[in-house]
Amino acid sequence: MKRSSFKKRLSSLRDKLGLDSPDTIWIIQPENRRYLSGFRADDPQINESSGSLLISRKKALLITDSRYTIEAKREASDFDVVTLKGDLIKELPPLLERLKTRVLGFEEDYLTYKLHRELAKRLKAISSSVRLTPMNRIVDDMRAVKDRSEIKAMEASADMMSELFNEVISGLKPGRTEIEIARELEWLAYEAGAEGMAFPPIVASGPNSALPHAVPTSRKIGRKEPIIFDVGLKLNGYCCDMTRTVFLESPGQRFKKIYRTVRNAQLSALEYIRPGVNSTNPDSVAREIIKDAGFGEYFGHSLGHGVGLATHEAPRLSPNNPIKLAKGMVVTVEPGIYIPGKGGVRLEEMVVIEAQGPRILTKNNCFYDF
Amino acid sequence: MKRSSFKKRLSSLRDKLGLDSPDTIWIIQPENRRYLSGFRADDPQINESSGSLLISRKKALLITDSRYTIEAKREASDFDVVTLKGDLIKELPPLLERLKTRVLGFEEDYLTYKLHRELAKRLKAISSSVRLTPMNRIVDDMRAVKDRSEIKAMEASADMMSELFNEVISGLKPGRTEIEIARELEWLAYEAGAEGMAFPPIVASGPNSALPHAVPTSRKIGRKEPIIFDVGLKLNGYCCDMTRTVFLESPGQRFKKIYRTVRNAQLSALEYIRPGVNSTNPDSVAREIIKDAGFGEYFGHSLGHGVGLATHEAPRLSPNNPIKLAKGMVVTVEPGIYIPGKGGVRLEEMVVIEAQGPRILTKNNCFYDF
Repeated sequence: MKRSSFKKRLSSLRDKLGLDSPDTIWIIQPENRRYLSGFRADDPQINESSGSLLISRKKALLITDSRYTIEAKREASDFDVVTLKGDLIKELPPLLERLKTRVLGFEEDYLTYKLHRELAKRLKAISSSVRLTPMNRIVDDMRAVKDRSEIKAMEASADMMSELFNEVISGLKPGRTEIEIARELEWLAYEAGAEGMAFPPIVASGPNSALPHAVPTSRKIGRKEPIIFDVGLKLNGYCCDMTRTVFLESPGQRFKKIYRTVRNAQLSALEYIRPGVNSTNPDSVAREIIKDAGFGEYFGHSLGHGVGLATHEAPRLSPNNPIKLAKGMVVTVEPGIYIPGKGGVRLEEMVVIEAQGPRILTKNNCFYDF
Repeated sequence: MKRSSFKKRLSSLRDKLGLDSPDTIWIIQPENRRYLSGFRADDPQINESSGSLLISRKKALLITDSRYTIEAKREASDFDVVTLKGDLIKELPPLLERLKTRVLGFEEDYLTYKLHRELAKRLKAISSSVRLTPMNRIVDDMRAVKDRSEIKAMEASADMMSELFNEVISGLKPGRTEIEIARELEWLAYEAGAEGMAFPPIVASGPNSALPHAVPTSRKIGRKEPIIFDVGLKLNGYCCDMTRTVFLESPGQRFKKIYRTVRNAQLSALEYIRPGVNSTNPDSVAREIIKDAGFGEYFGHSLGHGVGLATHEAPRLSPNNPIKLAKGMVVTVEPGIYIPGKGGVRLEEMVVIEAQGPRILTKNNCFYDF
């Protein structure tokens, strides 16, 4: 990621600071933190923060502790790194004073009730005039539209995944277990230099493929049954997300029809992925096709979601909450049909929205012409 | 885990419900949720909950969505499973009515500001008389003292780790990289049937061993240098945590002295681990020994921490915040000496506190008599 990307992000966030809104923003959410600063550290546990950002018009601070000081300085070179001596709640108010903060915006969908309560109490105790105000989705909405360097990073992530997937597919044999195959995939990802998996891989065969969120089991894969692979890795912070449904041998007519229907729904939905379109449109196109084929009740989830530093982020492609799709958004298109007890088919592409329409990032070509 | 364990936990939580305190408790934190109900699902992302519990004197509900209904019913058989149709915030108030809730306690160190704000708003909008009140550490403090089935689970987890560690050690050779070794360990853990790693393994060699939170690199391990392994896996939900420092060949006098000092600090601290002792005592015993040997400034972190469903949980063994140690607590004892640029030694045991003193769970015997 180029330094200029981070500078642009900071400046675009600063454009949102103003008289009627916070003059300083406090960022703790790990992906937002990395997006704005470049600081790569994760939080070791949900209740153990590796740092937070304070951004005002003129200053940008990264507050961390001695475990992360060195990395913070190296990775977040646009930020002044402040190393906490002890308690964040006690050390934050003097920093806010240094920034001349009057209104501090915080991520209300990430900050805990307790941290907010303690900070408010502390500010009151020292008669500070700083006011706390919840803010929502400012950075998340920025993240929804990717810049060029991000799209490049996601392309690299998806390319690596596509290749590893081919390697795994070439070694599939009846009798191997879902869990073995999933572990092999993880191993290959590590060997290839991925930062990790974007999420635990799904390998779901036979009746297990009817569970949209299946966890790999010790079930042995068979010949004429669907095997759903829903897989993604993380490279340079960026996730990819791809699903293919594989058959070791040609299935019966029923699963051929299901497969054709899902693929048709996917390709048709892709035609509605372009700037300016309502985010609910592609979902209803796919849903209509699946319904017309008689499988309406077997497609329970949404069509897709945004991907980026997180596997699931804005925008969602669902039947509800329409927003306008925009150039630079990266979304998945993943219709599925799941017949309880029998099996399912899901196909998922991750695409970047360009002026003319979608460009597919998950280039793996493992599809069937049933 | 036996059903009777869950029943005991519920009943002991219910003893804390009362007139001056919440009559119903809302649990969202994943480990607390699993501890009380047996529901194993993780949260896929920090902003994606797989469910929550509502516990009153007479009722116990597990609220989830259709993705998890089947598992929830199977795993949490003492709970009535409620499957959400849509929005948690809208569906919670009628459930509270069903439970005749007047005061609802919530986990203030986990619930986000936003979820609290939205629920409070909703309750007001429908003129509900339910009052929300923050609660802190009730379940965390219960979790700090393990019951017999938990100790058994942690023993199994630590036994598996000890064995795998021996396997890894037997294959160590100069020239292998830290990252290769870490991946091998992960692979073995998966093969052995672990639920996953408790945390990303640390393999830190030579100068890297001076970083207490080192991330494995492509550095090749050498002969006479310290190689710190800080490793843990998760089995049946329970974590283990163990550190050994390995030398392929005998090091020079300086690292022998450092090793002796750390081991001595550890063994001495272990003598102070027993019921009724202040949690700060073992830390100061270890710290004093390291200081007396002239390495005081090179031991920056706390002596240890509780382990259980989470890798880091109550109690902490640090110089501050004394609590009384109690029978059934499981803690680590992990002094270290880190010489910047040169290398470090850390040794960590995980022990359960019994009436007579500590019983070591991490039975791996890879120590040196330098």
